[in-house]
Amino acid sequence: MITREHLNRNLLEAEYAVRGPIVTRAQQLEEQGKRIIYCNIGNPQALKQKPLTFVRQLLSLLENPDLLREPEILKRYHGDVIRRAEAILAKQPSGTGAYTQSTGIPFIREAVAKFIRKRDNIPARKEQIILTDGASKGAQAVLLALLKENNDGFMIPIPQYPLYSASLTLLGGQQIGYQLDEQSGWQLSEEILTASIDGAMRKGIHPVCIVVINPGNPTGAVLSHDNIRMIVAFGKRNGLAILADEVYQENVYDPERRFHSFARVVHEMGEQQVSLFSVHSVSKGFLGECGHRGGFLECRNIPDDVMAEFVKLQSISLCANVPGQFTTYVMVAPPQPGDESFAEYARERDGILSALKQKAEILGAGINSIEGLSVDIPRGAMYAFVKLQLTPDKGEEWNALSEEERTDRLSRMEFKYCMALLEQTGICVVPGSGFGQQPGTLHFRMTFLPPLEEMEQLVDKLRQFHERYTRMVPAATE
Amino acid sequence: MITREHLNRNLLEAEYAVRGPIVTRAQQLEEQGKRIIYCNIGNPQALKQKPLTFVRQLLSLLENPDLLREPEILKRYHGDVIRRAEAILAKQPSGTGAYTQSTGIPFIREAVAKFIRKRDNIPARKEQIILTDGASKGAQAVLLALLKENNDGFMIPIPQYPLYSASLTLLGGQQIGYQLDEQSGWQLSEEILTASIDGAMRKGIHPVCIVVINPGNPTGAVLSHDNIRMIVAFGKRNGLAILADEVYQENVYDPERRFHSFARVVHEMGEQQVSLFSVHSVSKGFLGECGHRGGFLECRNIPDDVMAEFVKLQSISLCANVPGQFTTYVMVAPPQPGDESFAEYARERDGILSALKQKAEILGAGINSIEGLSVDIPRGAMYAFVKLQLTPDKGEEWNALSEEERTDRLSRMEFKYCMALLEQTGICVVPGSGFGQQPGTLHFRMTFLPPLEEMEQLVDKLRQFHERYTRMVPAATE
Repeated sequence: MITREHLNRNLLEAEYAVRGPIVTRAQQLEEQGKRIIYCNIGNPQALKQKPLTFVRQLLSLLENPDLLREPEILKRYHGDVIRRAEAILAKQPSGTGAYTQSTGIPFIREAVAKFIRKRDNIPARKEQIILTDGASKGAQAVLLALLKENNDGFMIPIPQYPLYSASLTLLGGQQIGYQLDEQSGWQLSEEILTASIDGAMRKGIHPVCIVVINPGNPTGAVLSHDNIRMIVAFGKRNGLAILADEVYQENVYDPERRFHSFARVVHEMGEQQVSLFSVHSVSKGFLGECGHRGGFLECRNIPDDVMAEFVKLQSISLCANVPGQFTTYVMVAPPQPGDESFAEYARERDGILSALKQKAEILGAGINSIEGLSVDIPRGAMYAFVKLQLTPDKGEEWNALSEEERTDRLSRMEFKYCMALLEQTGICVVPGSGFGQQPGTLHFRMTFLPPLEEMEQLVDKLRQFHERYTRMVPAATE
Repeated sequence: MITREHLNRNLLEAEYAVRGPIVTRAQQLEEQGKRIIYCNIGNPQALKQKPLTFVRQLLSLLENPDLLREPEILKRYHGDVIRRAEAILAKQPSGTGAYTQSTGIPFIREAVAKFIRKRDNIPARKEQIILTDGASKGAQAVLLALLKENNDGFMIPIPQYPLYSASLTLLGGQQIGYQLDEQSGWQLSEEILTASIDGAMRKGIHPVCIVVINPGNPTGAVLSHDNIRMIVAFGKRNGLAILADEVYQENVYDPERRFHSFARVVHEMGEQQVSLFSVHSVSKGFLGECGHRGGFLECRNIPDDVMAEFVKLQSISLCANVPGQFTTYVMVAPPQPGDESFAEYARERDGILSALKQKAEILGAGINSIEGLSVDIPRGAMYAFVKLQLTPDKGEEWNALSEEERTDRLSRMEFKYCMALLEQTGICVVPGSGFGQQPGTLHFRMTFLPPLEEMEQLVDKLRQFHERYTRMVPAATE
């Protein structure tokens, strides 16, 4: 019989905190009838965000084209939904039912290319694009393709989304963490990048790529144009490819910030030597269609024979799921002014984005009003990375501990805090250690996705819990 | 810039013939307006197989639950479709829109367990089941988890479905091929298995698992109960886990054969030491829902702590797409006698299966009537693995060639034949070398999925091509 001793060590070592023991406990409590507020994961529709009407009407027609012969439906659906379904089925008669080309349906890849051309005013070609089951699969493909030797490493932000650390461990690559600067709104610092890569190389690690998440997960930061230029130049100087995780590109709430794509900056700089991979997804933004697992990978400054290897890799998994491909199509080619659905689409989109902005502010301001908790009010994405101050019961032995032992002890405190929060309030968050953080600091990540009308109450629950917990904290330190 | 020299060598070495250069050429020809008959891949709905009405009506309601408030729809859909949609949405209010638990929606996993209990009259638990994006992802998870050292190997059939060879190469595992016996209807032979594993061990390879595809791809064979018992005993004797690819379990056309699951045989034998992984999919059978990428992995004789590692692996990719999970639900819990949809469902199911049986026979008999082509009339699955006799222009130099050089030359002949078939007739098939075959033999795999009314014509085209081609074969040998 297979035992743990038989398993791939990389699998045993991989950690994925977003779905770790706290979430497992939350599921148990839920089965026992407790109400859980799942703030551990960016899963908008699980927290009652409504799907866009256009997306779902279209998918219903594509799943059952017989509806196109139902006059009562034709009356109730907007004309552009019906025309869109008919146009899709004319080009792809098998609809959702058949494997597509490995890289995805050609006219959808062309629509993705057009979306990039329009968003950034730069060239883009469908041959550079692969439709994927969510952004994760695109990112994992880049890791798999670029990790050649055991000492090859990817630079990843700290804090980071644990997809990257988990996949690197799984695939046997090296992590080269670079700290984001909490004091300066989580931007990247050239000094820190340089120190990080130099340190890695001294340890014999060979850096091949830098991962940048913009807007940031878990930080909610939106990178400035200058910061992105700096990263591209850094990549070039060090012979690194860039993997840009841009799934939160629509989730920018600060009117003084806007999203700048790496593709655009690379193009503006006339940069043709730095290979760029960027991923996007239907799960975030205002669609929030996590269950559909749609997304794309765009490759730029990649020779054709390398692109062919990415296509082959995708072909081994056949193709991305087709409802997800169609959802991606709507994301990149939404209703336009003049279309019958446009007003409804725009109203729903703006409603979701403005609620997210309000929720970020309510949660951020609420947290900052709690003594011992603080957060940079998120300017983007869906998360608050909350700084937690708990005073460890240092005693005499604290001084005798190594830095690693102290970090371990702090991690246990952080974990206990999050578990107690879950047990006492039903609020499910993820300890900061799952994302990485400055040694000596404590954090947790929580989404600001619960419904707007529940946010004040959520903050109150958090406040009451925190005050109760910190009064008894000495007991929680061992 | 990233070049091929930077890429993971395992990726460069991986081959996936089902979507290789012949398919790429087919797509080019199609773009130029040529009609292509895609017999390269088991993709029923691309070849006009109709989806089941129940499946698609249900999915349309789950994608757009507003339809449940449309009286005209309620009149046109059977009552059990509506009740099923309502029951699903009551248990999973986010419908298709949210990430689910990593392993899939609990009530669907429970339905899978019940399906196995009913199919095999054996115990099964939802905790052993993971819902996956098609069967491929389940199989790849097993490979990833069980390949621990570089010399670990999986036994795979020859001929095999190239998912296995490609994924083994990608993940850096060793292939231990075992020949299926074309003379005895492609059953497994204990002598061949023993010779194969002994040979591998002499080369320093450490076998960890045996892959069995039943019914067979590309062979179409259905394994006998005795044959499966032999394999389980062989696995036990050699300390191997078993990975049973059972995606064609509904595709058995020979009334004298029936599908025996490995789970059932393992249970009957009272075997509790042999770890068994089995995968199933919505893409095959009579659903043919390839585009939905639904399926499951069942683990048996696996300790809980090993199961936890499979759950973690799945969690790193979040979860399988949800429309695919719902499609899997219908596969394992179809309409029952007494349900309003049942008659329609049964008629559609039986129509598809009986057409497949007829098509297998027409194609098989047709091929056997062509001189130089022969095939074991498929008893299961969706493919004919056609033996091709072409006489190489041996000349004097043939005798001077090594076995490897001869195999290479034969492979080139086979490839040219398939490419010429495509160019001249539009029929797209896959050369046997992509699946593996006895040295010195030539084959190609083709599906018998084109519409029934086109099968005779397909055979005629193949006959005319073959006769024309073999008359000019000497020119095709260099």
